[in-house]
Amino acid sequence: MRSVRPLSAGRLDDLSAVFRALSDPNRLEMLRLICAQRGPICVCDVNERFDLSQPTISHHLRVLREAGLVRASRAGIWSFYAPEPAGLALLERAPELLGTPAAGAA
Amino acid sequence: MRSVRPLSAGRLDDLSAVFRALSDPNRLEMLRLICAQRGPICVCDVNERFDLSQPTISHHLRVLREAGLVRASRAGIWSFYAPEPAGLALLERAPELLGTPAAGAA
Repeated sequence: MRSVRPLSAGRLDDLSAVFRALSDPNRLEMLRLICAQRGPICVCDVNERFDLSQPTISHHLRVLREAGLVRASRAGIWSFYAPEPAGLALLERAPELLGTPAAGAA
Repeated sequence: MRSVRPLSAGRLDDLSAVFRALSDPNRLEMLRLICAQRGPICVCDVNERFDLSQPTISHHLRVLREAGLVRASRAGIWSFYAPEPAGLALLERAPELLGTPAAGAA
C-alpha cells in the first residue's frame, strides 16, 4: 500500500472550511450570483434573489466570507460582496491537493 | 446587476453532497489515501491509518461513497474502496459550475 503524507493542519482546516461553506445549496447559488457580477454586489440585491429571511442570508454570506470565498465591504448602511480570489484558488487546487486520479493525469 | 440562471435541482444536490462529504478533515484524508493507491484499498488498511473507531471510519467511507467520490466492492469479509471518477469529475468542474472569475478567465 502506498502511504500518503498528510496535509498540514492549516491547509486541511482551510480546505474543509471551503467545502463546508459550499455544502449548502443556497450558499452555492449565492456564490454563483456574486461571481457573475462585474463588481461588488449589494446585500440588498442578494436579498431580492432569495426567498430567505435577511438574517438567514446574512448568516450564509458570513459563512462564505469566513471560508475566504467572498470579501465584504461597506458603503453607507449596505454591505457589498465580491469574489475572494484566495479561497476560490484553493477550491481550484482541491483536486491536486486531494491527489485525484484525473489531477495526477493532467 | 447580472442575473444568473440557477443550477438544476439535481446538479445542485449532487454538488452540495460532494462538498458536504469533503467538509470533514478525516474524510479529506481518507479520500487522499484512497486516491493515492494503484488499486482498491481494503478498509482494514484504512483502519490502520486513522486513530478512529471502526464504526466511525465506516461512517466516513459511506458518506464519501454516497456522494459519489469513492466506490466500494467486497472480497470475502472485507470492503475495498477505489476513487469514483463521476464524483471526482464533478469536483473538478466545480469552479466552472460556480462561474468563478478564474474559471471564466481560463
